[in-house]
Amino acid sequence: MKVSAPIGVFDSGIGGLTVLRELMRLLPQEDTIYLGDTARVPYGIRSARVVNRYSLQNARFLLSQGIKLLVLACNTASATSLAYVQRALPVPVIGVIEPGARAALRASRSGRIGVVGTETTIRSKAYVKALKALEPSLKIFSQACPLFVPLAEEGWCSRDDQVALLVAERYLRPLRRQRIDTLVLGCTHYPLLRDAIAEVMGPQVVLIDSAAETARATAKLLKDMGLLRRRASGGRRSFFVTDSPQRFRALGRRFLGDGQVENVQLLEVMQ
Amino acid sequence: MKVSAPIGVFDSGIGGLTVLRELMRLLPQEDTIYLGDTARVPYGIRSARVVNRYSLQNARFLLSQGIKLLVLACNTASATSLAYVQRALPVPVIGVIEPGARAALRASRSGRIGVVGTETTIRSKAYVKALKALEPSLKIFSQACPLFVPLAEEGWCSRDDQVALLVAERYLRPLRRQRIDTLVLGCTHYPLLRDAIAEVMGPQVVLIDSAAETARATAKLLKDMGLLRRRASGGRRSFFVTDSPQRFRALGRRFLGDGQVENVQLLEVMQ
Repeated sequence: MKVSAPIGVFDSGIGGLTVLRELMRLLPQEDTIYLGDTARVPYGIRSARVVNRYSLQNARFLLSQGIKLLVLACNTASATSLAYVQRALPVPVIGVIEPGARAALRASRSGRIGVVGTETTIRSKAYVKALKALEPSLKIFSQACPLFVPLAEEGWCSRDDQVALLVAERYLRPLRRQRIDTLVLGCTHYPLLRDAIAEVMGPQVVLIDSAAETARATAKLLKDMGLLRRRASGGRRSFFVTDSPQRFRALGRRFLGDGQVENVQLLEVMQ
Repeated sequence: MKVSAPIGVFDSGIGGLTVLRELMRLLPQEDTIYLGDTARVPYGIRSARVVNRYSLQNARFLLSQGIKLLVLACNTASATSLAYVQRALPVPVIGVIEPGARAALRASRSGRIGVVGTETTIRSKAYVKALKALEPSLKIFSQACPLFVPLAEEGWCSRDDQVALLVAERYLRPLRRQRIDTLVLGCTHYPLLRDAIAEVMGPQVVLIDSAAETARATAKLLKDMGLLRRRASGGRRSFFVTDSPQRFRALGRRFLGDGQVENVQLLEVMQ
């Protein structure tokens, strides 16, 4: 494996750009190749079996691009398919669940932790397992929030958006009643709704976004393997999507800011 | 072609069950095979190119099951891919757009008609073209409503659901200002939100659901071709999905009622 090889990142769509953003901050010298499977997004409503199939196809495409490490920047894919993809790939594969769980454990004082995510992520119990493996005495409360992704993609995200607040209130009320002190945003789209979620949960609840922690885990692994690039900056970004480069570019601005999501190529046949 | 052959119906997911329901009412003697492409739903956020590809794959599968006629029970697929699928298939193919447009024209007195649908349906201008072809003097006002499908799938649909009302109010306000007297529900999921939409639009606006009109068009075409079955009832139902038969069965109850969505088979590799 070459030090100069790029890091591969894939997500079902655009949400994984929150992880890419943190990778760019922490490892500005690394080249990255991002794949958004926009022809088959969202994964969060699909069975583990189908998510396995799609994840492996995506991973193999990025492998064919010569990556030195793969980040599954999608909570659903990480929850259902991490081990499956790891077994199939000759390069290291990092998911977002374990880093998120570690960050939550560090943040919580009461040991009462909430997790929100897609239907499939919550059904997989991947966060519950990862948290319990770290600390068996934790009390964990989970809630699927299917409308959060479409809300974020529609851009109805702000702290004073009445729809966002009402939806957040309906999903999060049971978690608030459980007096959690830490809430894992277990979907890469959810940081876009952070303001509305914070408004509903109140200032005493710490919100955990696994993106930063995943970037740190990536940096550590590359260092341990002697695969970190030495230069200080200059990483190149490239993007592939399976549908609508235009839509990806437009939505991508909400995640990375203007001018960051260029060089988006359409990958015609993923299947 | 055999009179005893089944009618094929496909939709991106479960929404097309509104069309199947009307077919079952009007043609209870016909066998039907329904395909819900639940591994790749929703189509309404995808490009026309990708919807073409998926629609043709679905159509070919149903053709392999020996159907005598195909109904594209998905507004997005009908809007982008009807002609494309018609050219490729040796059996007649009916979409939902033209029947919906005809029903709207009949209902409107003022000639001011609104259309709501997915992003891709609205961008295609398929309803505008179909309506103008029937009557060039019509005034047509379109609005994409991306959150309606996830709302309907979440079951937050009732007349007094605050989220449904707030979302409907935000999308439909511009149409209300245009003083339309008829609104086409240009997505097969939207009839589930009929109560909330009616509440926002007021009693003077007629809501058009193309399902019933599409069933009538299907009956007429079968009759004209001498392909109508003669017995009075006894049609068999079968269902295929590309993911999660359980989820399809559960959501299907909202459309067809208990006990109607049985015999759901998983179609493993659509690609």
